[in-house]
Amino acid sequence: MKRLSILGSTGSIGVNTLNVVRNLEEKIFIKYLTANSNSELLIKQAIEFRPETVVIVNKGKANIVKESVERFGIDVMVGREGLIECAKDSDVDILLNGLVGSAGMEPTFQAVKSGVDVALSNKESLVMAGELINHEKGVSGSKIIPVDSEHSAIWQCLTGESINDVSRLILTGSGGPFRNKNKNYFGKITPEEALNHPNWEMGNKITIDSATMMNKGLEIIEAHWLFDMEPNEIDIVVHPQSIIHSMVEFKDRSVKAQLGIPDMKIPIQYALTYPKHIDSEWESLDLASIGSLTFEYPDFDKFPCIRLAYDALKTGGSTPAVLNVVNEYAVYKFLNNEISFTDIPKMIEKACESHNWIEHLDFETLLELETWSIKFVNSFQS
Amino acid sequence: MKRLSILGSTGSIGVNTLNVVRNLEEKIFIKYLTANSNSELLIKQAIEFRPETVVIVNKGKANIVKESVERFGIDVMVGREGLIECAKDSDVDILLNGLVGSAGMEPTFQAVKSGVDVALSNKESLVMAGELINHEKGVSGSKIIPVDSEHSAIWQCLTGESINDVSRLILTGSGGPFRNKNKNYFGKITPEEALNHPNWEMGNKITIDSATMMNKGLEIIEAHWLFDMEPNEIDIVVHPQSIIHSMVEFKDRSVKAQLGIPDMKIPIQYALTYPKHIDSEWESLDLASIGSLTFEYPDFDKFPCIRLAYDALKTGGSTPAVLNVVNEYAVYKFLNNEISFTDIPKMIEKACESHNWIEHLDFETLLELETWSIKFVNSFQS
Repeated sequence: MKRLSILGSTGSIGVNTLNVVRNLEEKIFIKYLTANSNSELLIKQAIEFRPETVVIVNKGKANIVKESVERFGIDVMVGREGLIECAKDSDVDILLNGLVGSAGMEPTFQAVKSGVDVALSNKESLVMAGELINHEKGVSGSKIIPVDSEHSAIWQCLTGESINDVSRLILTGSGGPFRNKNKNYFGKITPEEALNHPNWEMGNKITIDSATMMNKGLEIIEAHWLFDMEPNEIDIVVHPQSIIHSMVEFKDRSVKAQLGIPDMKIPIQYALTYPKHIDSEWESLDLASIGSLTFEYPDFDKFPCIRLAYDALKTGGSTPAVLNVVNEYAVYKFLNNEISFTDIPKMIEKACESHNWIEHLDFETLLELETWSIKFVNSFQS
Repeated sequence: MKRLSILGSTGSIGVNTLNVVRNLEEKIFIKYLTANSNSELLIKQAIEFRPETVVIVNKGKANIVKESVERFGIDVMVGREGLIECAKDSDVDILLNGLVGSAGMEPTFQAVKSGVDVALSNKESLVMAGELINHEKGVSGSKIIPVDSEHSAIWQCLTGESINDVSRLILTGSGGPFRNKNKNYFGKITPEEALNHPNWEMGNKITIDSATMMNKGLEIIEAHWLFDMEPNEIDIVVHPQSIIHSMVEFKDRSVKAQLGIPDMKIPIQYALTYPKHIDSEWESLDLASIGSLTFEYPDFDKFPCIRLAYDALKTGGSTPAVLNVVNEYAVYKFLNNEISFTDIPKMIEKACESHNWIEHLDFETLLELETWSIKFVNSFQS
């Protein structure tokens, strides 16, 4: 029986993962569930799934969690240190990292270092620390199985193929809610409008990233580290229906695509059952009923975040980490009505240009860079 | 160096194959070229590619071929018996069968029996003799690599996957030139109209099969024998742009598709270089420039050939062979203005119902059945 840890079990990906596990033919033992502060849902999940241990990061919620689950023989670990301890446990077969933002990076790093396979939904891990994590992966022999629908699609298209035969990765993106809005309007976009994604139900941070298209930008950088492709070998095509989840072009110009209903349960389950596709009761894709799939070039002018991400990947070193952290905190400020939608790329561009560039990051430098980037966001004047 | 035989080198697939070989990085030695009666092109090809032997089936053309190529040290074999001898030669790595119609069946059978891998464009081989050919394949250990764009797509989507994980094959079809024509018009369709295919440049027989959609019907039967899927696990979706060449749905409802420009050079090259995708200079697929891919349910009422093929596959035994031969000779009669477009399915239905059904065919029975079917077509009164 596979032993699974779920980091961020009360978030969108975590809840989806538990839905998958609940219905999975192949039984899975959940060793850890972790939550940031949603103690109520964590307790409910713990009572249903009976993990060995739960982690509650918010220390103020520790007592209520302990009181509720310890009587079922479930251990409770507390705080960021509890989360890291869980990630370090090598007695786990697969760790699903569904954390949001840069907080997810260190757990990925520690799990990979401990030789644990990671089902990775937290794209910020590789954006910030791709070189470091891949190095540890090489040493420990652990695998990273992508959970993001785009990278899962590419991963699936590469099954049985050699990466040497690949000429191009083609990431699809819905284009977000502002694909057809005039650029002049962008300064007035409110958080409510930006949170209204046409196809996917997701957490707030990734929904805003989708609206700025920085989500595609982060995915380009993640794809580079996952599949060892250069920036000019990774393309984006806008595909508003989100049915083709991404594609791989081979050197003979044959293209493979992975398609499906836009629902995270498919890539999540595949990450847990890889390399098998296990029978599922959910609905089939019916292309004739969908009728039409459309494709457009991405608009680099309306969505400067895409270009910023390509440039950061080309510059390399510390720049993608700065791009990632500044983007994240800028998004929170936007959600908080402190800055405008168009301030997000402005802050990122400024930060990428003005930080002290370092070619090879170690773990400590990375944490310093994170602190610098947060300060940068907090002191930014547009 | 791979030793290749090309059966039907002067036909559409044969010419395309030689174009691929001409530009291929990985060098291939052509051992045989065979043609039915186009001696002029066969001679040109022989002088360029210098095969060990050429076969000219039409005995009336034997002398001109001999006079033209023997001085280059190229041997000449003659007649149907020469073709079969070429197919039996086990000192060949891969035989590309680009023959048209039921004439292609025996060469596939003989090559597989001799342990030669077959790059199969002649779909009639498996439609007529799937059970027999698969049996010989099991004994000799040879492989059949599909060249048809649809089956090549499925084959590519299955790379590295287990057929046990597959829930459904989805064959795409353009719908042919009469997709949007009213059914009342079908009786008046002329050969000229039917030969005007919207996407693909192909030989006459397959172009008419595409117009009646029997082409999809034959492909369902071929897919059954190639991939061991039942009739209810093989679906058709009409996709007029012919960009998605076919799809595989796995048990977790993840769908893989193979896409490309509608040009046979990609599946032909892949069959020759399998499992590698070799660098090619030709154009990339640009979905944003194409803009839109559309999908429709097939119209079983307008295109009864699809239903006839499903029924024949379900009935099994000798029925698919009768369907295939009667279709072929009915198409020739239609091309010859002897019968109407709507007579084609009528003849097939009648023949499938009225022949002496046999459960397991042997090779001799198959040839008798072929003779019976041709007689049936010639004596048919609508």
